[in-house]
Amino acid sequence: MVKILFTFRPPTYLREQLLKKFPQCDFSFYKTIGEAEELQKAEILVTYGEDLTSKHIDECSQLKWIMVASAGLEKMPFEAIHKKQIFVTNARGIHKIPMAEFTLGLMLSHVKRFPELAHLEQNATWNKKLPLQELAGKRLLILGTGAIGSEIARLSQAFRMDVMGVNRSGRQVEFFSGIYQLDHMKEPLQTADFIVSVLPSTKETKYVLTEEHFHIMKETAVFINIGRGDLVRERVLHQALKEGQIEHAYIDVFETEPLSKDHPFWKMPNLTVTPHISSITKNYLPRAFDIFLHNLNAYLHKKDDFLNLIDVEKGY
Amino acid sequence: MVKILFTFRPPTYLREQLLKKFPQCDFSFYKTIGEAEELQKAEILVTYGEDLTSKHIDECSQLKWIMVASAGLEKMPFEAIHKKQIFVTNARGIHKIPMAEFTLGLMLSHVKRFPELAHLEQNATWNKKLPLQELAGKRLLILGTGAIGSEIARLSQAFRMDVMGVNRSGRQVEFFSGIYQLDHMKEPLQTADFIVSVLPSTKETKYVLTEEHFHIMKETAVFINIGRGDLVRERVLHQALKEGQIEHAYIDVFETEPLSKDHPFWKMPNLTVTPHISSITKNYLPRAFDIFLHNLNAYLHKKDDFLNLIDVEKGY
Repeated sequence: MVKILFTFRPPTYLREQLLKKFPQCDFSFYKTIGEAEELQKAEILVTYGEDLTSKHIDECSQLKWIMVASAGLEKMPFEAIHKKQIFVTNARGIHKIPMAEFTLGLMLSHVKRFPELAHLEQNATWNKKLPLQELAGKRLLILGTGAIGSEIARLSQAFRMDVMGVNRSGRQVEFFSGIYQLDHMKEPLQTADFIVSVLPSTKETKYVLTEEHFHIMKETAVFINIGRGDLVRERVLHQALKEGQIEHAYIDVFETEPLSKDHPFWKMPNLTVTPHISSITKNYLPRAFDIFLHNLNAYLHKKDDFLNLIDVEKGY
Repeated sequence: MVKILFTFRPPTYLREQLLKKFPQCDFSFYKTIGEAEELQKAEILVTYGEDLTSKHIDECSQLKWIMVASAGLEKMPFEAIHKKQIFVTNARGIHKIPMAEFTLGLMLSHVKRFPELAHLEQNATWNKKLPLQELAGKRLLILGTGAIGSEIARLSQAFRMDVMGVNRSGRQVEFFSGIYQLDHMKEPLQTADFIVSVLPSTKETKYVLTEEHFHIMKETAVFINIGRGDLVRERVLHQALKEGQIEHAYIDVFETEPLSKDHPFWKMPNLTVTPHISSITKNYLPRAFDIFLHNLNAYLHKKDDFLNLIDVEKGY
């Protein structure tokens, strides 16, 4: 029997679905990896990807496959995994719908001035003179053109926006009217009305957005970061907003999370803090399970059509 | 010289555009119709459509064409206009972009719980546990399938929503996966997650949404009215929300506007008031002028391709 070990406890209906569909497998569900007693017997490990250490990998003498039920792989002990020739898949792609909806929601809330309309309502004030704007005709620059960036681009084009993108290679991608290489991003930054980052944290993206970039952005530009907090140093972002170099920033990811209670970002009028929540959705686990089920079928029937296979050497 | 009289004063750049493009016309711009001195000489009248009375029409002995720089025609003295065989055009269609963006903004703000996220931020509280939802997969029912309703439907389909519509005839319309007749709207009302009305005020739509309709809606339904305030009696809406028959209402239009300072709607936690602002945009007048310019060209060159010609007998 194929031994499958979870280091988190999915809701009952998802567990029952697994037991029913795969009677040939032996499932164990633990609340945390600390409670998991049979690591050495597990052939397949299902994890959120933040709990594994190289010591765990050493313990797993039967392990062939790790399914990460999230998209983040920064904390995975890839060296140990590579040494034992374990293969890894993740749930890449399931974030694109909630994150793209969140981004479009922020952009619309900004142009339609919902926070100010809420303030008017609190004061029972009828003011029709608030000048609202539109997304239509505005220019959007998306840093990152993978699944999430492309979904944001697709929706933004539906809103009649002009959508540009930045990626490593400069290769063209559907739903973008133009693509720039990461080291040539100054040009599109100068004309963008909205700049959205969905970049992951890698050697190439760490602190890649600098003081100079904020200097050349439009004064009316809106910056949205739902990727990773280390895209820009906190003091650079803080300074740019304090000096009013751009109009507003919506920041969902930070260098240190949770953001401390006394962090100055909470109180800045032109910076909106959200608690790393853009990918949260009730549909998260069911979508991750769809991918796992597909891959488990492939594994059991020795078919070579795994979804989201990770290059263990590169780490993505 | 063709005498063209405006009963409002457009901004300088739009006035200059007209003077330059149509030297064969004699333009007068007045702040209000009360200040207009040469009504009896005007061959063309440009108005927002809320200032004309049958008395004015009687005065206009040379009048051939009225251009209404808005979509609302409820206050037009059509009987007097019909008697004198004056033709009418309006700016129908220019509202669709801002109103559709406003609607999608409200729906996204609702599922992403932006007001609650703003509240968390005010208290410097990092809470990742707020369960956010998605538009994807949700069912939307749009009352009214004209230019505005269709634009909302187009965008909502891009968000992977299931979009149904209600119109007078039940005729199929692009971007809707199903259409119901106005007098058969009970069926789709029972399953809709979002109900959006963009209906104008006519004999058939006045108070067409009743107590019974709110009874059959889902308890989690969200009602958005950006059409006209007399779609539903205020006390019906008030009662439905007080009893929690639906989850939330976003109301932009009211039976009496402005909403009085002491109106109970301002303070209801599950009703959001906005000040009849969904169509407001900086691009409003330029778009209305594009239509007027096209029609003025047609008029001067006696071509028969007027945009947005109104049936004066029917009033729309």
